[in-house]
Amino acid sequence: MTALTAHDIHRLIDGLSAGALEELRGRDFLLTWDKSREELETVLQIGRVLKLLRTTNVSTRVYDSGLGVSIFRDNSTRTRFSFASACNMLGIAVSDLDEGKSQIAHGETVRETANMVSFMAEVVGIRDDMYIGKGHTYMLRVAEALEQGHRDGVLEQRPTVVNLQCDIDHPTQSMADLLHVLTEAGGAEKLRGRKVAMTWAYSPSYGKPLSVPQGVIGLFTRFGMDVRLAYPEGYSLMPDVVEKAGKFAAESRGAFRICGSMKEAFEGADFVYPKSWAPFSVMEERTAIVETGDRQKLQDLEKRCLQNNARFQDWQCTKELMAGTNGAMYLHCLPADISGVSCERGEVAADVFEKFRTPLYRQASWKPYVIAAMILASRMANVRSVLSTLLDRSDSRVV
Amino acid sequence: MTALTAHDIHRLIDGLSAGALEELRGRDFLLTWDKSREELETVLQIGRVLKLLRTTNVSTRVYDSGLGVSIFRDNSTRTRFSFASACNMLGIAVSDLDEGKSQIAHGETVRETANMVSFMAEVVGIRDDMYIGKGHTYMLRVAEALEQGHRDGVLEQRPTVVNLQCDIDHPTQSMADLLHVLTEAGGAEKLRGRKVAMTWAYSPSYGKPLSVPQGVIGLFTRFGMDVRLAYPEGYSLMPDVVEKAGKFAAESRGAFRICGSMKEAFEGADFVYPKSWAPFSVMEERTAIVETGDRQKLQDLEKRCLQNNARFQDWQCTKELMAGTNGAMYLHCLPADISGVSCERGEVAADVFEKFRTPLYRQASWKPYVIAAMILASRMANVRSVLSTLLDRSDSRVV
Amino acid sequence: MTALTAHDIHRLIDGLSAGALEELRGRDFLLTWDKSREELETVLQIGRVLKLLRTTNVSTRVYDSGLGVSIFRDNSTRTRFSFASACNMLGIAVSDLDEGKSQIAHGETVRETANMVSFMAEVVGIRDDMYIGKGHTYMLRVAEALEQGHRDGVLEQRPTVVNLQCDIDHPTQSMADLLHVLTEAGGAEKLRGRKVAMTWAYSPSYGKPLSVPQGVIGLFTRFGMDVRLAYPEGYSLMPDVVEKAGKFAAESRGAFRICGSMKEAFEGADFVYPKSWAPFSVMEERTAIVETGDRQKLQDLEKRCLQNNARFQDWQCTKELMAGTNGAMYLHCLPADISGVSCERGEVAADVFEKFRTPLYRQASWKPYVIAAMILASRMANVRSVLSTLLDRSDSRVV
Repeated sequence: MTALTAHDIHRLIDGLSAGALEELRGRDFLLTWDKSREELETVLQIGRVLKLLRTTNVSTRVYDSGLGVSIFRDNSTRTRFSFASACNMLGIAVSDLDEGKSQIAHGETVRETANMVSFMAEVVGIRDDMYIGKGHTYMLRVAEALEQGHRDGVLEQRPTVVNLQCDIDHPTQSMADLLHVLTEAGGAEKLRGRKVAMTWAYSPSYGKPLSVPQGVIGLFTRFGMDVRLAYPEGYSLMPDVVEKAGKFAAESRGAFRICGSMKEAFEGADFVYPKSWAPFSVMEERTAIVETGDRQKLQDLEKRCLQNNARFQDWQCTKELMAGTNGAMYLHCLPADISGVSCERGEVAADVFEKFRTPLYRQASWKPYVIAAMILASRMANVRSVLSTLLDRSDSRVV
Repeated sequence: MTALTAHDIHRLIDGLSAGALEELRGRDFLLTWDKSREELETVLQIGRVLKLLRTTNVSTRVYDSGLGVSIFRDNSTRTRFSFASACNMLGIAVSDLDEGKSQIAHGETVRETANMVSFMAEVVGIRDDMYIGKGHTYMLRVAEALEQGHRDGVLEQRPTVVNLQCDIDHPTQSMADLLHVLTEAGGAEKLRGRKVAMTWAYSPSYGKPLSVPQGVIGLFTRFGMDVRLAYPEGYSLMPDVVEKAGKFAAESRGAFRICGSMKEAFEGADFVYPKSWAPFSVMEERTAIVETGDRQKLQDLEKRCLQNNARFQDWQCTKELMAGTNGAMYLHCLPADISGVSCERGEVAADVFEKFRTPLYRQASWKPYVIAAMILASRMANVRSVLSTLLDRSDSRVV
Repeated sequence: MTALTAHDIHRLIDGLSAGALEELRGRDFLLTWDKSREELETVLQIGRVLKLLRTTNVSTRVYDSGLGVSIFRDNSTRTRFSFASACNMLGIAVSDLDEGKSQIAHGETVRETANMVSFMAEVVGIRDDMYIGKGHTYMLRVAEALEQGHRDGVLEQRPTVVNLQCDIDHPTQSMADLLHVLTEAGGAEKLRGRKVAMTWAYSPSYGKPLSVPQGVIGLFTRFGMDVRLAYPEGYSLMPDVVEKAGKFAAESRGAFRICGSMKEAFEGADFVYPKSWAPFSVMEERTAIVETGDRQKLQDLEKRCLQNNARFQDWQCTKELMAGTNGAMYLHCLPADISGVSCERGEVAADVFEKFRTPLYRQASWKPYVIAAMILASRMANVRSVLSTLLDRSDSRVV
């Protein structure tokens, strides 16, 4: 990529779909399936251009001042830094709203807080992934509050809400994953028919969100890929998302199928994504218990789940299983539970992880660009002209 | 406001009082009554100009680098973000000094810390509102330490201290409140004789600072308004501030009067500001107990206070009480305790709050501009020329 | 200094050693003894130039965007703000990685995290000073991970690691100390033969790191100074560092000697640096206990140490002891334990501290410039041309 000339980059910029940019303008980025395939490809392309600019020391600053508000209602390291990096790249300063973790937000407080932190905000990035039916809803409430605040003259600009992981989708992750896969494959058109296995994997922990596997099956099926989902009995995802994945596969003339074992899903796969998650039904139960505040019940649930998990310790991505693939590339959102490294027995064998460490890190490296692209696409009236201006003025990022 | 031309804005800038600017230059902003009425009006006018610039995409960056230190010795969301927004607008990066909450600061530590965090600081924003006799004193100590540090060649610049709420006053709040009221009324001269009711209101919580009501009666009385203060027996404010309010009212040919009920204070009012606070005597007692570290006594005090509070549950801002006003606008510093929403029974009925939500949010939206104006007025040798330069160079905030 | 003309500053810039700059380029700053004396002098000189630029309102921004990652595995106020100030001065935004305190970091997590937070990072500043054999090792692991990440195409740039205090050295402190001493003495060449006493001093606390005294004896001996180290029986430093100090003294034709009392070390001294630390053997024992997680043993160790400390309460820097010096200047890294002020009995008598407060604060004021110089020297291909450009373009830091 670095060998591209300014002329090549201009061609990439000119190739951005005017219609898709029009649609992306002024809209939040909450779920990939709220966007057309063309919009998604446009965001990815903007991400690529931003990377090309930055790696050639061309400043990507489009703001001379402005705030990015981050609201993390669950732990985060890589997404937090990716958001900070994306904002920084555009000239936006990050201010973190620290409300304390793990609360379910309600009514008036959400509306008010959304406005109070956003007087100078260009973007509000939110992670709220712990409670089924809550995270996405919370983001919608924030977006509504901002919309109304702007309409009422409270906010001078209407900040864009970017989903940094909710209970349903994790679009900054899945889009970075896709950009990685697409780059490795040599372009979006090369993804057609490629086999990807999104599978459950064993982890000695409990309560991991569903949004990563849901995000992957809901996005990769839109690009004509042959997507297989596999999990042990009882570990199903949200039915609604699974249904969407099937529909998307049909529309994109790809395939979507649920398999009963890792082995089956891996067969002939080009990409494998083995990752732990909690069963949908357990996540629902947990949310209901949290609302009641019963700590004993929560502990009982955790115990029961860990015991159940332990029945599926053989759902581990090993060299033997990898041998059944089509020389697949191993994917993960990180951090992975690596057997003998971060835990006794986990999602992936150490030798498999070791072999793919570098591509895994590269996979993660796309996230800041994807987030910056989401922000730019939503904020700017004329993205093509903005990017061209950046390229032509060629301000150095580093003196 | 947005319809103003560059020519109109230049006239606003030219109208800033040279004498007041001279007085504001290099001074901290700790208490509104440290400033002349002309100085206060000048700060408000700068705030208006900054808003006009920003809303027309004119960069308000006056620093290419520089630090803003924030010291929050009590919780804060909206003031924290307002300070961050104000700094960001001017090109200042915020660095938060997190000392842990609720301590009373002493001697050498204050002097040393003030210098150690300020080597590159333009402004130090402080919230310290929990202990009577402590917060304002702490800010004075910090200011002295900075003054001396600069005199001794330790600090290359002497940062401005901005009071983000102390035990006595909350000037960034009251100035934002005033700018809101003034904007709604159509100018400072229109405030003369307008009636404002600053009243206590019931809340199921304990220990809320006195600085908001004190800040309001100490500021609004300076603009010829007819200010009524009302509270239940035992909930009096600091005698010194109350005395000041009376004197200011006399000087500005306004009025100041203490009423025995919400109803009386509301009669014919143009603005009402019902808000809970703890009695001055309780706040004093609490400070003394905290100094001894006796947790049992603190708990006893809290219990006693909540019981006493409960006797005044009818001090609630209802539609019925609002009916006795002159179609008053409801004011609050937020968050309000809304009956049936954020608590069972609180400061304000839900229907009243609901009706005024938008103006309430707009009231809060002035705070970043007020803080930025305080900083600018203190830091810049020639504010008029700086603002004119910003307007004339017309750098875009957003590319 | 402020009377220097642009011409004078250009001469300082031109005087920077091309060879030393070449060596500093692309290297981390972990231990002063990794660097040649010429490299150290070059960093100090860059620090001086940066201060000259900033105090004459010349912008020192070399980045239009870019991240500085700070990892504080122990408390910090002044180093935290010094790092923030240094980054800010260069145009770098700080993002703090908060992992929770006091953990010993292991393996894969270190490698992965180092990469995940560094996609846009220019510098990673680390404090990890609590555990013998761990802090410096951790920084090496981070540096290796970044090196490999860059080699593998994961990171677009290889961030510089700056040691903000490890178990062995505290180079940003000792270099600021040296720059202070050198400025007071009137130049590096004036340091030859000057006597400095680095001594233990009593403190009613436990477990203070060894890195300050080690940093001082390992750095000041390289400049031909006559360095005396004194401590009570049992409070020795790491043998390896002590050995280095002796070797450095011999090489620089200075002197290094261990004394049995504060009095002896102070005799005829030009500079004294009395400061508490924990015995090396205790720090080793503590590290071993922490690895086992035995809280009871940790408490026992603390109790035992405090009792032992108490035997040496007379190791206090008093006016009487100062009388035996050559009118010495008192040094400290701050905060000091001041008898009758911050504790009943501590490292230094109140009157001694009081007398030297201003020079102490000035000593600390060099730290931001030293850190900025370390960053610049490592990041920039042509430091002389960069500094000249800053001076010639003369962009104002403040409008």
